[in-house]
Amino acid sequence: MGNLSHEIMTLELAALERWNNGDPDGYLALYDEDITYIDPEQRIEGRENMVRYYEAVRGKVFVESYELQNPVVQPLGEGAAVLSFNLISRAGDRQWPWNCTEVYRRKPDGRWKIAHNHWSLMKQPG
Amino acid sequence: MGNLSHEIMTLELAALERWNNGDPDGYLALYDEDITYIDPEQRIEGRENMVRYYEAVRGKVFVESYELQNPVVQPLGEGAAVLSFNLISRAGDRQWPWNCTEVYRRKPDGRWKIAHNHWSLMKQPG
Repeated sequence: MGNLSHEIMTLELAALERWNNGDPDGYLALYDEDITYIDPEQRIEGRENMVRYYEAVRGKVFVESYELQNPVVQPLGEGAAVLSFNLISRAGDRQWPWNCTEVYRRKPDGRWKIAHNHWSLMKQPG
Repeated sequence: MGNLSHEIMTLELAALERWNNGDPDGYLALYDEDITYIDPEQRIEGRENMVRYYEAVRGKVFVESYELQNPVVQPLGEGAAVLSFNLISRAGDRQWPWNCTEVYRRKPDGRWKIAHNHWSLMKQPG
């Protein structure tokens, strides 16, 4: 795994671990001001609106175990990268098979921020 | 609409119009060699695999009418941009409410290519 992939995956996994324990602040710290966000129920623009959306679920998300599968990081010029992966999240008897896209951009101070995030559910057999 | 948005939207709409008439070559010409692709049923890596996937539906997709809603183009440094939009595609009595992400990167020769494409269906009420 290259340096870029390592750097991006480290950020993503830290945010995801917090999310899986009811804490949205990892993702909120990564979201850039102009973040665009898609999930099966919402399409949201702007970090302020994401704060409102995630505050409503703070302390309510508990994922007992997960598998992050086949992450791919593609560089986009010097200052950006796109990460895509599958994520199987499990809690009790349920599981959710996610597709995820995270578009990262490097800010002038060198930190990475997420400009776009798209979550969707894989069609399950049957 | 800025120059960047105009340039990206022109490429996307031309590819979409062809797709809606059974012709995948518009998208295939835009997909970069390392394209990563997600739809509700598939996750695919590499242009060669996308050619195989789309050849199987050549001449079979016919969208009678569509509305492309709320496109947003975000620049990612100098050489990339992410486009997100909703698309309502209609044929006969059916309609499909899509979320779409297209990650474009500019190649050394100045042309734009798609590095990542994520299609998902919006949850429909009821």
